[in-house]
Amino acid sequence: MTQTEQLKMHNFNAGPSILPKEVFEEASRAVLNFNDTGLSILEIGHRTPLFEAVLQEAISHARELMKLDSDHEVLFLHGGASTQFMQVPMNLLDTNEVAAYTDTDVWGTKAIKEAKLFGHVEVVAGSKDKNYTYLPKGFRVPATAKYLHLTTNNTIYGTQWQDLEAFYAYNVPLVADMSSDILSREIDFNRFDLIYAGAQKNIGAAGVNMVVVNKNILGKTTRQIPTMMDYRNHIANGSMLNTPPVFAIYICMLTLRWLTNNGGVEAIQKKK
Amino acid sequence: MTQTEQLKMHNFNAGPSILPKEVFEEASRAVLNFNDTGLSILEIGHRTPLFEAVLQEAISHARELMKLDSDHEVLFLHGGASTQFMQVPMNLLDTNEVAAYTDTDVWGTKAIKEAKLFGHVEVVAGSKDKNYTYLPKGFRVPATAKYLHLTTNNTIYGTQWQDLEAFYAYNVPLVADMSSDILSREIDFNRFDLIYAGAQKNIGAAGVNMVVVNKNILGKTTRQIPTMMDYRNHIANGSMLNTPPVFAIYICMLTLRWLTNNGGVEAIQKKK
Repeated sequence: MTQTEQLKMHNFNAGPSILPKEVFEEASRAVLNFNDTGLSILEIGHRTPLFEAVLQEAISHARELMKLDSDHEVLFLHGGASTQFMQVPMNLLDTNEVAAYTDTDVWGTKAIKEAKLFGHVEVVAGSKDKNYTYLPKGFRVPATAKYLHLTTNNTIYGTQWQDLEAFYAYNVPLVADMSSDILSREIDFNRFDLIYAGAQKNIGAAGVNMVVVNKNILGKTTRQIPTMMDYRNHIANGSMLNTPPVFAIYICMLTLRWLTNNGGVEAIQKKK
Repeated sequence: MTQTEQLKMHNFNAGPSILPKEVFEEASRAVLNFNDTGLSILEIGHRTPLFEAVLQEAISHARELMKLDSDHEVLFLHGGASTQFMQVPMNLLDTNEVAAYTDTDVWGTKAIKEAKLFGHVEVVAGSKDKNYTYLPKGFRVPATAKYLHLTTNNTIYGTQWQDLEAFYAYNVPLVADMSSDILSREIDFNRFDLIYAGAQKNIGAAGVNMVVVNKNILGKTTRQIPTMMDYRNHIANGSMLNTPPVFAIYICMLTLRWLTNNGGVEAIQKKK
């Protein structure tokens, strides 16, 4: 497989993903006639068995592709990774607590800016000094950090944390923005307490986030969290707290199904 | 036009909208081949001239259909009306200030719950005593209220504020959830300082909000607002602060174009 072909499947650039042709074809049909119901995917109610099946299949494929344990929940939430930049600290960081952040790209910088609104941020590693052209090594993380945040793949400057073992050794909860490399390589996803990915890069189209969260890290802050921002509400309501982004979740489901039918993460990684 | 036919165009129920057939047909084509570009609408970058034209056409139709003046900005934001329940008070209400709310349906009740997280809420009128079966009249609104919030159409219990004149007389900024009747009847939209509508009811598909805001009411709170929640950032970036929900905005554009080509709000209202 040439590099160009590989990019067609997983796009490591800042732009949107290039989805498999089968996904476009099925989605195009579903806009007129979803699963031979005579209804458009755009007009089916989100509380119907028709959409319930779409959502459950998306969650099921995600769970299997990522080999998630029972502590980890899969959510599909409104917004993009930029929404998660605020939602993560709002849920995990109290005003007087410290979160550790890595600053290895504009995305990390944006995440840091939002986290500072909710608590203390310690930038434990960064590469701003050389315009984000490298990834720092051997840095220290305070044992008191509520979590350590990293961006696994840095699209603008083209760096990727290939070896995540060093992060596991810090023994603090790990939070990762995996927007641009999720499901493109094998990762022990259960080592992370919170993973988020704007769908438009690797798992679908713009307008939805996939969030994988270890439910045990939630509910430990004293802040009153707005209903739509509290991960616990979305878990309790199975990503149906309000009308979800139906079509965007449908595209994720088709993409995740395609990944499953094509050998999963292992096969995708080998094709590189 | 029979009631059933009218409901096909504008759905006043709690479920999703039933869009015009032409919208489904064009959207289906665009998923495979958007405007004869050979690209899917799902893969075009949001910062391309292709998508810029979609967004600008959506805004332009909305401005004309609603006859908006130059103080009012049209935004297309991630999320649904439930997101606006928190975003409105976060932007407009300081901790020590009062907002007036009407409680005429479950939607108003949900909006009140979120507003209480950000400041004082005075419920100035409600119909909870009779299970939301009527709309209260002749209520008082404190002159100090930062804004008065109403739900123009109450889908669950079937009441609609037909006469909005009484609201104009209160002489406080008006904020309205118009999710389920926006563009279905003539309203002097410029009398409102903030209007929001989850697109899935009347103007598109789930996954995007249309927000119309008088820019003069913004920037008056002392709160530090997260980047993605601050309307001013979205205005400054023309709804492109982050990757917007591209396909959901495209469906809004097609629906707004269809409304324009079919005589606008006046014609829709006459068909009822």
